Amino acid sequence: MNHPAPPASVRRPVPAELLEALKAAFGERVSTSDAVRAHHGRDESPFDPQLPDAVVFARSTEDVQTAVKLCGQYNVPIIPYGNGSSLEGHLLAVEGGVSIDLSEMNQVLSIAAEDLTATVQAGVSRKALNEALRDTGLFFPIDPGADASIGGMSATRASGTNAVRYGTMRENVLGLTVVLADGRIVKTGTRARKSSAGYDLTRLFVGSEGTLGVITEITVRIYPQPEAVSAAVCTFPSMGAAVKSVIETIQLGVPIARVEFVDSLAIRAINRHSNLTLPESPTLFFEFHGTEAGVKEQAETVQQITADNAGSGFEWATRPEDRSRLWNARHSAYFAMLQLKPGCRAVTTDVCVPISRLAECVVETEQDLKGSPLPCPIVGHVGDGNFHVAMLIDPAKPEEFEEAERLNRRIVERALRMDGTCTGEHGVGLHKMGFLIDEHGADAIDAMRAIKHALDPRNLMNPGKIFSYTA
Amino acid sequence: MNHPAPPASVRRPVPAELLEALKAAFGERVSTSDAVRAHHGRDESPFDPQLPDAVVFARSTEDVQTAVKLCGQYNVPIIPYGNGSSLEGHLLAVEGGVSIDLSEMNQVLSIAAEDLTATVQAGVSRKALNEALRDTGLFFPIDPGADASIGGMSATRASGTNAVRYGTMRENVLGLTVVLADGRIVKTGTRARKSSAGYDLTRLFVGSEGTLGVITEITVRIYPQPEAVSAAVCTFPSMGAAVKSVIETIQLGVPIARVEFVDSLAIRAINRHSNLTLPESPTLFFEFHGTEAGVKEQAETVQQITADNAGSGFEWATRPEDRSRLWNARHSAYFAMLQLKPGCRAVTTDVCVPISRLAECVVETEQDLKGSPLPCPIVGHVGDGNFHVAMLIDPAKPEEFEEAERLNRRIVERALRMDGTCTGEHGVGLHKMGFLIDEHGADAIDAMRAIKHALDPRNLMNPGKIFSYTA
Repeated sequence: MNHPAPPASVRRPVPAELLEALKAAFGERVSTSDAVRAHHGRDESPFDPQLPDAVVFARSTEDVQTAVKLCGQYNVPIIPYGNGSSLEGHLLAVEGGVSIDLSEMNQVLSIAAEDLTATVQAGVSRKALNEALRDTGLFFPIDPGADASIGGMSATRASGTNAVRYGTMRENVLGLTVVLADGRIVKTGTRARKSSAGYDLTRLFVGSEGTLGVITEITVRIYPQPEAVSAAVCTFPSMGAAVKSVIETIQLGVPIARVEFVDSLAIRAINRHSNLTLPESPTLFFEFHGTEAGVKEQAETVQQITADNAGSGFEWATRPEDRSRLWNARHSAYFAMLQLKPGCRAVTTDVCVPISRLAECVVETEQDLKGSPLPCPIVGHVGDGNFHVAMLIDPAKPEEFEEAERLNRRIVERALRMDGTCTGEHGVGLHKMGFLIDEHGADAIDAMRAIKHALDPRNLMNPGKIFSYTA
Repeated sequence: MNHPAPPASVRRPVPAELLEALKAAFGERVSTSDAVRAHHGRDESPFDPQLPDAVVFARSTEDVQTAVKLCGQYNVPIIPYGNGSSLEGHLLAVEGGVSIDLSEMNQVLSIAAEDLTATVQAGVSRKALNEALRDTGLFFPIDPGADASIGGMSATRASGTNAVRYGTMRENVLGLTVVLADGRIVKTGTRARKSSAGYDLTRLFVGSEGTLGVITEITVRIYPQPEAVSAAVCTFPSMGAAVKSVIETIQLGVPIARVEFVDSLAIRAINRHSNLTLPESPTLFFEFHGTEAGVKEQAETVQQITADNAGSGFEWATRPEDRSRLWNARHSAYFAMLQLKPGCRAVTTDVCVPISRLAECVVETEQDLKGSPLPCPIVGHVGDGNFHVAMLIDPAKPEEFEEAERLNRRIVERALRMDGTCTGEHGVGLHKMGFLIDEHGADAIDAMRAIKHALDPRNLMNPGKIFSYTA
């Protein structure tokens, strides 16, 4: 198991002619200013920024095509940019090149209420889509926390708190418009809910992190807003008891919409942050969607299960203000955790394991963390077996980043031993290229590389990410 | 729009040395007998059989690897064979070669009840898996009608009547073991419920119809058996009224497990077959899964919706014997339809459209069918927008096959105009290669072809299917 630092960047030359051609094509919508480049050469990862040579602000698929073709003429890399919220260095211009900013592609192109589909340009954020859906009685459930763009969420195969019920971007993207490395525009999928028509190009581009093409339009599934929503919270004496409750809930077929785990340290952070006195124990937050009678029945069933597993303080609520109060702790967890260590930055792990191994995985992880000088609260999408350790480091201290990397390595190694994955929802980017080989084996990575070579033979599309272009 | 006949087969030479080598490796488990080859050179499609040169009965992934490597040495095609129930010519040895029969790979390798996953060898049929699950309180919902192998269902991205609630093989395969064209064994995916770790090879092989590798093991999702099941049936004055009821049901968030449409002609067939007097009108069959209270509430909601849409004769039942009686008509539909024309064979269409277009699509299709001499009853997985016209032809009359092809062409053209797909669940095989280009466009097919070339540069894996290897 090895996890090398990102490969040293070898920036490719960006000829003045390319910049001239981009300016001729895009006018004010291309920038080489330091400020704009700096904004586009970073993301929410702990890596130092690496700046693109220019940024193009695209407004249409044809704009993207123009930029891709021009870059191709000069063998210059292309890095798609949505809202800048990715976590693993996806946006860094490690070989230089042109960042294509899609944030001005912010049109909701169509909403088909009868079909429960919406088609959006890639720069539409999940909140903007939900704003557009507000009066239709429908919603888009995928919620990765940040107000990410739908294009970026597709590219990283994002999910979040609702995935236990509604799935991830993998299950919720029906079709895509993609500009390929050679500038051709392909449409994958249709608006049919299912299809057996040839290779699943849609699922190939979902999660490809910009390395196979630029996603410019996305058709997603949308859902009826539930008639009723209820929320519950419950405290447990141990992680094992909490996870056992979730397993039994799922095995009984209770269609929970969300179930989130917060560990004792994160609760302590929340208590400090919000001046609360929650029991500093492993805690589960539930949300139920359904009919009035249905959510009541779900909550009662879960209350019984948690009681059988030594859960205490079970509270549930249906009125929006009461639900907000119950979930407030979960919602404020991220900022509360950051305040455990003023000035810190969070380096976040993202393993996902079969739920039968989750308690063991978290408990062993907690043992690792106890021996570390870093504060490391844990939150988890427990219904999926996915949890995040937020390792709080002082960005001025390289040794703390090294310590976080050491912990992350141990956590990933453990997850892989348990038949899990190094990344449940954040993607590989620069950060997990070594782990990817450990997870899938060199032959599977070779197959991925062969696909990359076939679709992007000059390695123009977001080079240096996911796996090495050369074996 | 063109739909050529399958390309004339150019059989590749199969040297005697290969057959010797296969016999040395597999002994009795390789056959060149006419009977065995004839059994493996056909499927449930209307095409004339095209026989493989030999059949190998594999018992392990390593057996498959051995056979693939030997065939590769002699440039001989490989055709994976599960239970022989595919519908579009997938199994025909159009370029000759070796059929690898996986039916003896029939072990359920593991059942993880807490994780709701099962891992099976590719030859395990869906009924055999459900038999193995019987005492666990869990089940595998994907039901394409035939007792297909899980490997074959993965390869064709199968679904069936439960897809509206549980999804298709696309959503329910977590990971695969695949033997690639060069004999390497790769494992895709893990047992984690979700992952963002690199390209989605799992989804690439699901639906690849044996053209990228031989699937030998599959990890699938399994589900808790619902506490309660109820069924309902209802008759409508028109297809439009029936579909409107389904749209409103889904928009209200009622989690129907199954909703099947049967048209007037199919009901007439069922009445004759089973000596019944059902109203010969468009009919919907519903199934609800949930708690006792939940399925009651679902049925009441649907009853109200159907009444508002001029539905009549709504009946519902929860006792197994009563449910069976209600669904008996749907279950017997296929054989009843065949008896409309003694000695016939059914050529089946498989389009899938956005549900908002489904009524229009079926009504226009019925107009086409009225002008045809062939009896053409219709059944549909209406919650998905997927329906099948069973065109009953006399296999001795080529002109009837031609007429069926003409109708199919019109139906597919219409579905594509409505942003649908030429195949919702049967796959492309030999039959829909022309339609695939119409559906996705030449550039998307080029991308598929580039992937095929990258992973199978000598076109060994089930050649001649899905798209032409040369542009």
